Amino acid sequence: MTSTSSGDARACAGKEHANEAKSKEDFDLASVYVSDAQYNRNIFFDTSPQAVRLYLLYNHRLPQVLIYFFILLHLSLAICEDPAVLPLPPWATMLMELLCVHIFALRLVHYAKVIPRDKFWKDPKNICMIVILALTLVDMIIYGALHAAGCYGVRWSRVLRPLLLVNVTEGRQLRRAFRSIRNALPQILYVFLLFIFSILVFSLMALKLFSKRGLRTVDGAPYFTNYVDAVFDLYVLVTTANSPDVMMPAYNASSAFAIFFIVYILVNTYIFMSVFLAVVFNNYKKYLKEEVRQLVRAKRHKMARAFAVLQERTGEGGEPLVSRACWTRLIRLVQPDISHAHIELLWSVTDDKNRGAIDKKAFIQLADLLNIEVITLKSRPHPLLRLSPALYLSAPSRFLCRLVQHRAFVITYDIIILVNAVFIGLDEESPVIANSEWVFLALYLLEILLKLYVCEPRSFFSRHNFWNWFDTIIVVCALIATIINSTLKSSGGYTSRQILDIVFILRVLRLVRVVDSIKRFRTIINTLIRIGPAILTFGQLILVVYYIFAMVGMELFKGKVKFYEDASDPAKAYCGNLLLKGSTFAQLNYCKNNFNNVVSSFILLLELTVVNQWHVLSSGFATVTHVSARIYFVLFHIVVVIIIINIFVAFVLEAFFVEYSVDKSDLQTSLEKKIEELELGVAQETAEDNLVNSMETCDNEQMAEQTESRKPNLMFKIASKRYRTVDALLQRLFEADLEQEDDADADADPQTNGNFSNPTFSTA
Amino acid sequence: MTSTSSGDARACAGKEHANEAKSKEDFDLASVYVSDAQYNRNIFFDTSPQAVRLYLLYNHRLPQVLIYFFILLHLSLAICEDPAVLPLPPWATMLMELLCVHIFALRLVHYAKVIPRDKFWKDPKNICMIVILALTLVDMIIYGALHAAGCYGVRWSRVLRPLLLVNVTEGRQLRRAFRSIRNALPQILYVFLLFIFSILVFSLMALKLFSKRGLRTVDGAPYFTNYVDAVFDLYVLVTTANSPDVMMPAYNASSAFAIFFIVYILVNTYIFMSVFLAVVFNNYKKYLKEEVRQLVRAKRHKMARAFAVLQERTGEGGEPLVSRACWTRLIRLVQPDISHAHIELLWSVTDDKNRGAIDKKAFIQLADLLNIEVITLKSRPHPLLRLSPALYLSAPSRFLCRLVQHRAFVITYDIIILVNAVFIGLDEESPVIANSEWVFLALYLLEILLKLYVCEPRSFFSRHNFWNWFDTIIVVCALIATIINSTLKSSGGYTSRQILDIVFILRVLRLVRVVDSIKRFRTIINTLIRIGPAILTFGQLILVVYYIFAMVGMELFKGKVKFYEDASDPAKAYCGNLLLKGSTFAQLNYCKNNFNNVVSSFILLLELTVVNQWHVLSSGFATVTHVSARIYFVLFHIVVVIIIINIFVAFVLEAFFVEYSVDKSDLQTSLEKKIEELELGVAQETAEDNLVNSMETCDNEQMAEQTESRKPNLMFKIASKRYRTVDALLQRLFEADLEQEDDADADADPQTNGNFSNPTFSTA
Repeated sequence: MTSTSSGDARACAGKEHANEAKSKEDFDLASVYVSDAQYNRNIFFDTSPQAVRLYLLYNHRLPQVLIYFFILLHLSLAICEDPAVLPLPPWATMLMELLCVHIFALRLVHYAKVIPRDKFWKDPKNICMIVILALTLVDMIIYGALHAAGCYGVRWSRVLRPLLLVNVTEGRQLRRAFRSIRNALPQILYVFLLFIFSILVFSLMALKLFSKRGLRTVDGAPYFTNYVDAVFDLYVLVTTANSPDVMMPAYNASSAFAIFFIVYILVNTYIFMSVFLAVVFNNYKKYLKEEVRQLVRAKRHKMARAFAVLQERTGEGGEPLVSRACWTRLIRLVQPDISHAHIELLWSVTDDKNRGAIDKKAFIQLADLLNIEVITLKSRPHPLLRLSPALYLSAPSRFLCRLVQHRAFVITYDIIILVNAVFIGLDEESPVIANSEWVFLALYLLEILLKLYVCEPRSFFSRHNFWNWFDTIIVVCALIATIINSTLKSSGGYTSRQILDIVFILRVLRLVRVVDSIKRFRTIINTLIRIGPAILTFGQLILVVYYIFAMVGMELFKGKVKFYEDASDPAKAYCGNLLLKGSTFAQLNYCKNNFNNVVSSFILLLELTVVNQWHVLSSGFATVTHVSARIYFVLFHIVVVIIIINIFVAFVLEAFFVEYSVDKSDLQTSLEKKIEELELGVAQETAEDNLVNSMETCDNEQMAEQTESRKPNLMFKIASKRYRTVDALLQRLFEADLEQEDDADADADPQTNGNFSNPTFSTA
Repeated sequence: MTSTSSGDARACAGKEHANEAKSKEDFDLASVYVSDAQYNRNIFFDTSPQAVRLYLLYNHRLPQVLIYFFILLHLSLAICEDPAVLPLPPWATMLMELLCVHIFALRLVHYAKVIPRDKFWKDPKNICMIVILALTLVDMIIYGALHAAGCYGVRWSRVLRPLLLVNVTEGRQLRRAFRSIRNALPQILYVFLLFIFSILVFSLMALKLFSKRGLRTVDGAPYFTNYVDAVFDLYVLVTTANSPDVMMPAYNASSAFAIFFIVYILVNTYIFMSVFLAVVFNNYKKYLKEEVRQLVRAKRHKMARAFAVLQERTGEGGEPLVSRACWTRLIRLVQPDISHAHIELLWSVTDDKNRGAIDKKAFIQLADLLNIEVITLKSRPHPLLRLSPALYLSAPSRFLCRLVQHRAFVITYDIIILVNAVFIGLDEESPVIANSEWVFLALYLLEILLKLYVCEPRSFFSRHNFWNWFDTIIVVCALIATIINSTLKSSGGYTSRQILDIVFILRVLRLVRVVDSIKRFRTIINTLIRIGPAILTFGQLILVVYYIFAMVGMELFKGKVKFYEDASDPAKAYCGNLLLKGSTFAQLNYCKNNFNNVVSSFILLLELTVVNQWHVLSSGFATVTHVSARIYFVLFHIVVVIIIINIFVAFVLEAFFVEYSVDKSDLQTSLEKKIEELELGVAQETAEDNLVNSMETCDNEQMAEQTESRKPNLMFKIASKRYRTVDALLQRLFEADLEQEDDADADADPQTNGNFSNPTFSTA
């Protein structure tokens, strides 16, 4: 521990012992530890002051945003590359790709400078990055050479692009999700093999039962005469995509054959699919729990390190303590935008015995305390009150305020919204309906103005008032779009379809507001919003898988199926490919479901995820290429529908159970208690509503208090159910199980060793 | 407590105190309490000796089987009633129904005699029964009168029939499942309303976006021009049944419109459907837990009552005890077929301090102990050993035994099965293939004979050797069917398709045996078999719902859609209804999917449960009747797919989690320990395989032991993971949560009060 008394040491005000003074470097180091603990970063940076400064730069928001921007740019290059939506010459896209590769390399070099060399080379995610970047360069050179020579080349390294999203330092959640899947694979594999065995046995039975009967499908094709086709048909039946159709010929021949299909559906669709969900859910949960446990352990290690850096031996019995001044300075470093009052509050929670210094145990809480989102409500006087107090406090003004705050006001506007819904449903060609839109717009504007008259504007538009923002944006946008639309209409009699579409969407979205006035609905919606960030990880997971499949699909199937805008073109009837003439694919007008560019590939993959008509799509592409093309579609089904969608369902289930059952954490309760003790609290919602409720339209309590203005002018409220990081949500998911074990753990941890050991889960 | 010393008192052998002697009536009463506790019956019978005897008769297996037989008969009357599969004159079916009604009434009267009058009239399930039976009689009279007068009558009381299955005394599981659903309904309702609101808003948006564009579907129908149709189309999209089709016209017009559908699918299909599963799962679990808690409490009450009847104050400090003799006599009454050795084992577990008598706490265990299935393995000498010991113990015979028990024997037969699979797949017309069947049959027979040579036949065919039974039945049936088939063929050259079908199915089923040789597969299969009985409750639930919907559907849609066997009939192309001419329903040849009799109704409802082409089916029936017919189909979807299937999934999930995580109960472990202590145990399977493994083909340990014949000639094994009753599985599901609370409960329970209080969950 370095304890050189530098010039900055005096910043640690009120300090008596010079030999305990901390340098600026110490604070930097400690703040890095704390913020790593807060955001669950697991980077084993050098502790030299220089490396710490580099590391602070590395964790700065700007380079992080930049790296994601360049990853997105790199991924979206596919829009302009060969089967392109917006074609660009190869040199242009390759130049952009080269830029991206350089940026990624730069970031990697920066990372290499931050952490010790041996750690860098031991981390698989760095090796992955280097390999991906090298392969990308090799591919670009080969493709460039082939292109220059006029040969056909495949940009195969495009498949690797989404892997950057996984291997970038910030892709922690994504790496964890992938690791969970990988760990669950062996268990899933056994069920999957049994499932395949079941399909094979049933197919053999179907072949023996139906092949000799001379049955025909509706299209006149032979029915279950070929084993491979039988297996494929029955695999499709598992997805239910060809549900009664595949049964009909046999069922028409004899009702008894329905038994075969009923047993098949029961066994494979219902039982096996439930077992898949169960196995995926169970394994995912198990490994995630293990990872989160290690995460919590690592967090405490880091906080212990930070404590070791800042500790001063001033307690009774030589117990190491950290003084309030050091603690405050540390927090200001970790979270520069924190309010003074918030720091006071946190201190009063941490130092509950009022000793002026805290021990290690209290110090370790800090990371969790910072993760609890405390909303500071500044009770500012209304601007109108300052401008003209007499007018604002006059009887009519007070009456207006009461009116707006009354329950009837909300109900009135709910009725207006419902009436509006009916008007929207009616034909907008009629002049009465068209003009009524102005009335409704005026009413909505009036509502917002009235609320602004009552509420202080800054608190009305505070970050947590989701519905106020929603309302205002929708109404203002609708107003602008409607004005533009009617200007265009009256000036040239011309109506832009695009603007009209936007106007319609905005009008309908206004109706969503009704949900906010019904408490039960608000509860459900808020739960969904809360799960939102965690679901985003799955969004990335899906993006990675879709991108890889889209790149492969585009190479395999591009240009095989064409869509013709011109309805009169005879080629439209068979999607420009004679092989599709008369096929169900062409009959159903699926020509636009093709792999001719990234956008249509993604939409096609989404359709395949939804599964219905999956067999028509895969058969279509098998017709224009080769029967083995079905493998691509079956593989996609297994990966996305059987594994990833099940994990998604598992996550939503788990998150909902937690929402319904778990109470607030101890720390949150103690913070709330302190807020109450200090009489700084906004009255909490009724206990019944135990889900997020930080998004009230306008706090009634605050409004009431403004007119009376007796209470202190600064109040706190815990956004109790929202988490700043997804990790925090995950930790909470398993909190009950972890609580005890980790307490024991933290005590046993030797606080003197240098950098803590490398957790085993840092591999991609 | 009656303690009259009757003539039977001496049966309680070794008794010293005459005043403590128990009458036969006491034992009857106690045994009724114990068996009620064991099977979780909650019937508040009179404790008078006469009522107890009536109650014993009521709980006898025969009347229970009879009542289920008559319920099934009553339900299957639908096969012969008006839209009939096998038409019978109305007087015949009504006579049979009258018989059934009388049987049910008789059973009800019996029940009324058993329990106190006030309890009888307070129980809703009895009131339900009476109302159902009365309504059935009224309906039969009205229908009979109308029929006699030549008028058209509706047998509306048929809808009530499946409710008998719910309200019969034995339908406990089913009542509980229905109660759980009813209790979960309010929570589900709120999510459902929000979900409907979301569909309505999206439909309005679709109407505004697409109605004025003049788009057409593939059939040339207008696209999203009518609000009600738009709502229906988007509801169908939630089920994914019309997945890409509904999007295609808009997508073909502009790629940007795909965004609308993607958002819709994300919100409604993925998020809302997951939320439904989560809410159903969570609520179902919550209420089930509450019910099981009450069940456990009631069980302990009952055991305490039984103890109170049999207790003798002989312990130190006047502590009430039950002597071994009484205990033994009680068990023999409760379970007449129990072996003496098994009783000895149970006693040694119960009376672990060897006091010769047990206190209340040990006594209460009895119900659970009886529910642990202990397999008594009698190590009998092989019959051949008795016939000719010299030959059976000769070197070649020993070598043969070793050969059959060798791992290679299993592998050889696995290879034979795989080769057989290939042969089955090949064309059976060729004489080589046809004759090879005889070879395979001979090989399979040889395998069974060899195994019988090694294993003692009675242990080979013991109740728990599932796979031995499976093998033997399949092979013997295949042999018989093949012989019949070839006899028919050689005699008249005529081949019966039915027999050939059976032969094929049996041949393919033989392949399933492979699964048993792979341990991981066996594990999964055994888990599924274990969940089986619990899933049967869901089978009944589905039966009730299907039956009600089938009855209503038959009244609404019978005869509207016809199926013609004769392919040349021109009416076949439009299912005999001109309204269907050119519709997708007729084009896809769905004519046999109709409500013209119970069997086809059930198959149609199953297709609707699988959901795919749900919209084609419902639109078809809406075309031939009225648009409002869709309500029937939407209602079916909501009830079956959204609620019941989700509960099914929830149950499978929960059961799997328990399988994967929970260890054996304490009681089981202590029983196992005792078996080990007594050196009567068959070596347990390796710990790794923690699922059911009571279905080994032939216990290797036992075989080994036979040839050596050193160990005792009676051994025990716990079928550790199988439960005799579904209740036991349910109790185990929540065991961890219940354990502590109920222990506390049992002690607090005053054991002196008469009949225990009516649990609150006995309503249907």
